[in-house]
Amino acid sequence: MMIKDTLDTIVPEMIAWRRYLHRHPELSFQESETAAYIAKLLRGWGLEVRTGVGGHGVTARLQGGKAGPTVALRADIDALPIQDEKACEYASSVPGVMHACGHDAHTATLLGVAKTLSRHRELLRGNIVFVFQPAEEVTPGGALGMIKDGVLDGVDVIYGIHLWTPFEVGTAYCKAGPIMAAADEFTIEIKGKGGHGGLPHETVDSVFVASQLVVNLQSIVSRSTDPTEPCVVSVGSIHSGTNFNVIAETAVLKGTVRTFNASLRMDVKARLENIVRQTCLMQGADYTIDYKLGYPPVVNHAEEEQRFYRAAKAALGEAGAKTSPLIMAGEDYAYYLQQVPGCFMFVGAGNPDRGIVYPHHHPRFDIDETAMTHAAKLFIALVEDYMSEHSR
Amino acid sequence: MMIKDTLDTIVPEMIAWRRYLHRHPELSFQESETAAYIAKLLRGWGLEVRTGVGGHGVTARLQGGKAGPTVALRADIDALPIQDEKACEYASSVPGVMHACGHDAHTATLLGVAKTLSRHRELLRGNIVFVFQPAEEVTPGGALGMIKDGVLDGVDVIYGIHLWTPFEVGTAYCKAGPIMAAADEFTIEIKGKGGHGGLPHETVDSVFVASQLVVNLQSIVSRSTDPTEPCVVSVGSIHSGTNFNVIAETAVLKGTVRTFNASLRMDVKARLENIVRQTCLMQGADYTIDYKLGYPPVVNHAEEEQRFYRAAKAALGEAGAKTSPLIMAGEDYAYYLQQVPGCFMFVGAGNPDRGIVYPHHHPRFDIDETAMTHAAKLFIALVEDYMSEHSR
Amino acid sequence: MMIKDTLDTIVPEMIAWRRYLHRHPELSFQESETAAYIAKLLRGWGLEVRTGVGGHGVTARLQGGKAGPTVALRADIDALPIQDEKACEYASSVPGVMHACGHDAHTATLLGVAKTLSRHRELLRGNIVFVFQPAEEVTPGGALGMIKDGVLDGVDVIYGIHLWTPFEVGTAYCKAGPIMAAADEFTIEIKGKGGHGGLPHETVDSVFVASQLVVNLQSIVSRSTDPTEPCVVSVGSIHSGTNFNVIAETAVLKGTVRTFNASLRMDVKARLENIVRQTCLMQGADYTIDYKLGYPPVVNHAEEEQRFYRAAKAALGEAGAKTSPLIMAGEDYAYYLQQVPGCFMFVGAGNPDRGIVYPHHHPRFDIDETAMTHAAKLFIALVEDYMSEHSR
Amino acid sequence: MMIKDTLDTIVPEMIAWRRYLHRHPELSFQESETAAYIAKLLRGWGLEVRTGVGGHGVTARLQGGKAGPTVALRADIDALPIQDEKACEYASSVPGVMHACGHDAHTATLLGVAKTLSRHRELLRGNIVFVFQPAEEVTPGGALGMIKDGVLDGVDVIYGIHLWTPFEVGTAYCKAGPIMAAADEFTIEIKGKGGHGGLPHETVDSVFVASQLVVNLQSIVSRSTDPTEPCVVSVGSIHSGTNFNVIAETAVLKGTVRTFNASLRMDVKARLENIVRQTCLMQGADYTIDYKLGYPPVVNHAEEEQRFYRAAKAALGEAGAKTSPLIMAGEDYAYYLQQVPGCFMFVGAGNPDRGIVYPHHHPRFDIDETAMTHAAKLFIALVEDYMSEHSR
Repeated sequence: MMIKDTLDTIVPEMIAWRRYLHRHPELSFQESETAAYIAKLLRGWGLEVRTGVGGHGVTARLQGGKAGPTVALRADIDALPIQDEKACEYASSVPGVMHACGHDAHTATLLGVAKTLSRHRELLRGNIVFVFQPAEEVTPGGALGMIKDGVLDGVDVIYGIHLWTPFEVGTAYCKAGPIMAAADEFTIEIKGKGGHGGLPHETVDSVFVASQLVVNLQSIVSRSTDPTEPCVVSVGSIHSGTNFNVIAETAVLKGTVRTFNASLRMDVKARLENIVRQTCLMQGADYTIDYKLGYPPVVNHAEEEQRFYRAAKAALGEAGAKTSPLIMAGEDYAYYLQQVPGCFMFVGAGNPDRGIVYPHHHPRFDIDETAMTHAAKLFIALVEDYMSEHSR
Repeated sequence: MMIKDTLDTIVPEMIAWRRYLHRHPELSFQESETAAYIAKLLRGWGLEVRTGVGGHGVTARLQGGKAGPTVALRADIDALPIQDEKACEYASSVPGVMHACGHDAHTATLLGVAKTLSRHRELLRGNIVFVFQPAEEVTPGGALGMIKDGVLDGVDVIYGIHLWTPFEVGTAYCKAGPIMAAADEFTIEIKGKGGHGGLPHETVDSVFVASQLVVNLQSIVSRSTDPTEPCVVSVGSIHSGTNFNVIAETAVLKGTVRTFNASLRMDVKARLENIVRQTCLMQGADYTIDYKLGYPPVVNHAEEEQRFYRAAKAALGEAGAKTSPLIMAGEDYAYYLQQVPGCFMFVGAGNPDRGIVYPHHHPRFDIDETAMTHAAKLFIALVEDYMSEHSR
Repeated sequence: MMIKDTLDTIVPEMIAWRRYLHRHPELSFQESETAAYIAKLLRGWGLEVRTGVGGHGVTARLQGGKAGPTVALRADIDALPIQDEKACEYASSVPGVMHACGHDAHTATLLGVAKTLSRHRELLRGNIVFVFQPAEEVTPGGALGMIKDGVLDGVDVIYGIHLWTPFEVGTAYCKAGPIMAAADEFTIEIKGKGGHGGLPHETVDSVFVASQLVVNLQSIVSRSTDPTEPCVVSVGSIHSGTNFNVIAETAVLKGTVRTFNASLRMDVKARLENIVRQTCLMQGADYTIDYKLGYPPVVNHAEEEQRFYRAAKAALGEAGAKTSPLIMAGEDYAYYLQQVPGCFMFVGAGNPDRGIVYPHHHPRFDIDETAMTHAAKLFIALVEDYMSEHSR
Repeated sequence: MMIKDTLDTIVPEMIAWRRYLHRHPELSFQESETAAYIAKLLRGWGLEVRTGVGGHGVTARLQGGKAGPTVALRADIDALPIQDEKACEYASSVPGVMHACGHDAHTATLLGVAKTLSRHRELLRGNIVFVFQPAEEVTPGGALGMIKDGVLDGVDVIYGIHLWTPFEVGTAYCKAGPIMAAADEFTIEIKGKGGHGGLPHETVDSVFVASQLVVNLQSIVSRSTDPTEPCVVSVGSIHSGTNFNVIAETAVLKGTVRTFNASLRMDVKARLENIVRQTCLMQGADYTIDYKLGYPPVVNHAEEEQRFYRAAKAALGEAGAKTSPLIMAGEDYAYYLQQVPGCFMFVGAGNPDRGIVYPHHHPRFDIDETAMTHAAKLFIALVEDYMSEHSR
């Protein structure tokens, strides 16, 4: 029986695992049941399993039949604090918690790959490390902890896949260089001086200062960054004041900065801090800035992009291998690629004909489950291509 | 015994009444106990008392010994939803409710005047209506209801006094024409389109639209109103968004407009509505505006300003009679002056030497109780001056 | 013959003098022919004339028949750099120069008063100084020079009148306290860094910085000044850049600040300087500010306002005496009132029925010449009232 | 003798031609002498020369010794209205006109290629059209006219090179897809209502409206365009008002929009027009917009990028072939690529060690003349590669 045929027989199980996980989501840093579920399955297939790796992380090692390089394959396993609004039998059973980003399917896919390859280990010219990582959704993320616990020791290359509903099922996307953004967060507190709404001259109006600040921040992207370097500065929330006729004493703004370039990232931070400073000084307000650097950009290695094209054509056909646009979201997968070669890819999971159109983090988010088979095939094709090149 | 001497003997009672009311504040439109307390005292002095006038309003009629005009004297009786932070024996006993604007003292003062004059009714060349009005603090206010219930029927002139801590005890202030502002309120809801913080072009960013709006509203006062006409447009609160990395779908702003001129008032409303409209159209947002016209400006009659100078000098001495600046706050006393002649005055109640420095509506607000005697004397002097001029 | 009758006979001459001066305007600091014309007339009436007082200033002293105070009456004599667009026989004969502010009529009026009173000097219980001042239109103005040259020595009170077309002929306006604004000027030069229009991040965009500055300056009036204190900050010109696709290196803004309160005036200056500073620092631009303090506010003395009401009623009838609004323009007459008591007044010179509707400084500006007689009568009535009160 | 050797012997002539043209620059649409100079040389080498092609354009056809495709090579020939500030013997002899963009060198390079290949025509497996295009610097440009006059008839592929001082000599840059921007221009006239600087409420302040507009336009790039699509909106000049104390009646702004995507380009135009509209309506101003679509983006064909890498390595060595960043400038070469395959490239011409650092359009702009040889070699290598692939 060929590897491909084995995978085909396992597809129904993959879907069952995914639906089980979808019904039982766990928030970031709380994935104990999920980890136990994963570990039990992996152990059942005779893999060397480690649990508690960097928190609730699970790894499994598959020793190939022949000597060769070590390839890591990574899935993330945590869910989001979102109420599932889908009406289907596998909808979340946990109020306010939901796999709204597809990590359930990532996990099930990688379990499918593990079960498949564990039956063909004699064919492998090298070893595989299956990485089930917790806490991708919440900084500082789970990747750093797993790296610290040695998950990359001896690893030659790493691959990761995100199922992605904005892309249609049947496609896969990758690109060399930056592919996902550095996603930084900031919280700014403006401290003015409250007072009577009819006597603004006796106050420092925090609503006004905060509003000027939001307008002034626009200039970072419009005037101060290289137009060929993608950059976003968004203020997601602003809260100030409680009453129509009282000038507000304080204001709090929260926002995000997205960049793909390490130097630009620090430039934007400095420029934002300067704009906050001068805007507040202009009106006599004080302020604090809490600027939290999030995940760095995900930067793919150029050779692995080329391997992706070969593997994706093998797995999905000629038309399925696409060059990815830049994705403005962040991923702590970035940390793995700072240590070892590899790449991160997207596998199309949207299907408008079947109503699978909701974006990630939406209360009705779902995937076309066929995408899981595509992703599993792509992982296997990458492993085969890499081992074929690097063993002899 | 002279009227003045009678008043002097009643001062300790006035202070006791005020402290009792201070301990037992009631919110606007809920002043049932306060009204009962007032009515009981007034009835005890043989006055014709009406209760339930325009809600919890109380009036008392004092028939003078001789024929003459009818003079109305008004006090307001409601308290505010503020937690009393004073540490004194007469501090509020009701959690979250406090006489932080001096209405307790207004009430006690007018009670003192009523008790005093009720003992000297034979001297009066005309009649007095004592008006204890509820709900001054909350639009639509209590004045309109009392007017509707006939409180001004047969009244020739009306006087009202606000004790005022920004003015020092020992002074009284009045001016002809506008003295207190029209105080209007607005609530604006902006309806954008939410989305991912890294993909602003797929959204209509409500935080940004709201911020632009606050900045754009500044031009009403800076560019569009006559610089010699006082006008304030303040946004007291802005609330939009819940998360640092999600573009907010909606934003809500609340604010106030203060003017002293009826035509300007409507111009500002129209201009505000236009700025909201164009700012939203510029970014593709929808909006609603709830613009609530509050109390009109308090406009004093010119002859009564002259009477005030005479009466205040008589009551407080030459140096005590002052020309008032414009006060940016509003008062539903304005409605009385739309019906009958009269004026509204401020009597200084601050005393920095004794630490009485907190502004109205402050959790530590208090008054120098001597001001009550001053106000009572001023009321009596006005009554005497008016009756002397208008009776024969 | 009464003073009033004498004046009536002189009216045709006043009009002739005014029209002569209108045909022969001279710019500020260049009024040599005008001064000679005035001096010659004054000398012809037997007055003690001084020329070259503080530049092209002329004064004339009239000794009264009886002892008493010294009253100064002031007219200004300079014209404006405006092309006369009127089609009438007395239109300006000097290209680009025009009496577009009525100083020709001020001069002719004061000449008429001088000729009239010189024929009745025996009736005067005191002395009069006629002040013909040059250079009112251009800072630092001509008043300071005349004061330095002693024009106010021995003067007890001073009166000045501006004919004013926004007010209808037949009226006169005055008010106690501030009546005309302090008018300050500023020039701001922003120094950014030019560059390619498609590469804004390599530049400091002066057009953008200047635009932000204009928007930011709005907050001075909308947020930082007492709403009951009139204040205007206007940017009259902005110039930056020469090409559509080149980021501008520099920008120049010119503007004016109008206030009526000395303390507010300096606050606004400081706040403007701070806003310029922080706006430029926000974008990394340099700047210079040239802030030129113009004339101070014209502040009338309270007793003289009362005298104005009496005199204006005597001169123009009951209905003619009005309380003036604040006038946003400036006047170096302010300097006289910093030295001696007195007041500044407006006499209505507009007449819509006759098409006399153009504002001051308009190329078609003209006056209803009847206003000159009104102004002359007002001057004379003030002199009589003052002397009557202060002599014995 | 090899082609390469022939080129080497011609280099001194190339430099001489370039310096002659540098001394004798002609503005766009006025290149008559330049065209005559080019035509005379080309005719001397036995080429079929056409003049007056689409204005002052010149083409020359070289028939190869063997049948094969037709390759077009393009140079632009016009100069700029800039005063040459270099102090060297070949500095411009025409006041205010200068080859500040390297078109002199483009022309001389292509002449060198023509002379070289004309000596080896027997080796060519196909034909070459040399295109000397006028008026690249001024829209609508010279390319459209030459295309209309048939310059691309029978042409299979076209190559164009820009010498570029921001890149170091010894390098060449290309990329598939968009490489140079669409460069559109706009002129906005705002029509407010002038008036007295102290009476803004009687005016519509054009300085303020124009300033708000510049600030509002920032949101196009910061909020409304895909962050992964480069886009620039720059206002290069703003002019309004003449006096510090007069509110300006009108304002004029000029600017540029740079995009690389045809759909985004039209979106930005629509959004700019909407922002102008709403900003003006907000303050009651009228406006006109003159939006001139400039050159479209230069979009290279993917196969030709691959050929570039091969040719550039052959011509400049392995390290010389680079992937180009996006260049924010525009080029009417874009029109050729809308008709036939091909690509546009940059050849490094800067040399900091020799002080050759000034950007294009700078009064001291110069090139390292070695770059001309590099460009000539690159043209020849492209011709050989293309003919080798497409002939047989």
